[in-house]
Amino acid sequence: MHEAPSRGDVNTDTEICPIAEAARLLGDKWTLIILRDLMQGPCRFKDLERLGEGISPSVLTSRLHELEVQGIVSRMAFREIPPRVEYSLTDKGYDAATVVEALRSYGEKWLLRGDCQSL
Amino acid sequence: MHEAPSRGDVNTDTEICPIAEAARLLGDKWTLIILRDLMQGPCRFKDLERLGEGISPSVLTSRLHELEVQGIVSRMAFREIPPRVEYSLTDKGYDAATVVEALRSYGEKWLLRGDCQSL
Repeated sequence: MHEAPSRGDVNTDTEICPIAEAARLLGDKWTLIILRDLMQGPCRFKDLERLGEGISPSVLTSRLHELEVQGIVSRMAFREIPPRVEYSLTDKGYDAATVVEALRSYGEKWLLRGDCQSL
Repeated sequence: MHEAPSRGDVNTDTEICPIAEAARLLGDKWTLIILRDLMQGPCRFKDLERLGEGISPSVLTSRLHELEVQGIVSRMAFREIPPRVEYSLTDKGYDAATVVEALRSYGEKWLLRGDCQSL
């Protein structure tokens, strides 16, 4: 028997469901792919663009900005010549590793067998 | 130190990253909210609409159809009067419980303290 996540009594008009809140924040394929890449360590924009599974520069810019606003990504500008900007995860960002790991396990089990590779 | 999910060598042009594949399939806030609700057991359309954190009927229809096509949701029509249609998770759907649980833990830790509740 499968163990169902408990929604408990949080899904009412007055209470807030942590699953829904996290889904609003992290439930976006590009956001998840950016998180995956930043889990490896600080990256420049170009690195994220190259690793990002076809992400467009404008979407990458937008997602990085949102993640910065939410305190998940930190942007560091180094006064070098040429100037260098690096993005890295905050503690709040690194804590999303459990979500990314769960996606990896799921993907390994269900999506690498040919049934969904064309998605 | 945080433990980073390993991307390993799967993020090349010729290999497929399980995290990215899962993000493409599950990385959508409405999809995740529908999965959360179906983890509790079979639901009718109206139940999912009521529980779905403001999801519109057209988005719900679209996501349920996609999930059915992907083998994550099963649609059962009962020949009753009035007719009854129920949606439930397949094994492939229930296995996403780890993703939903990871979101719940993340949401409980980071998003119920007032810093992101207005998202």
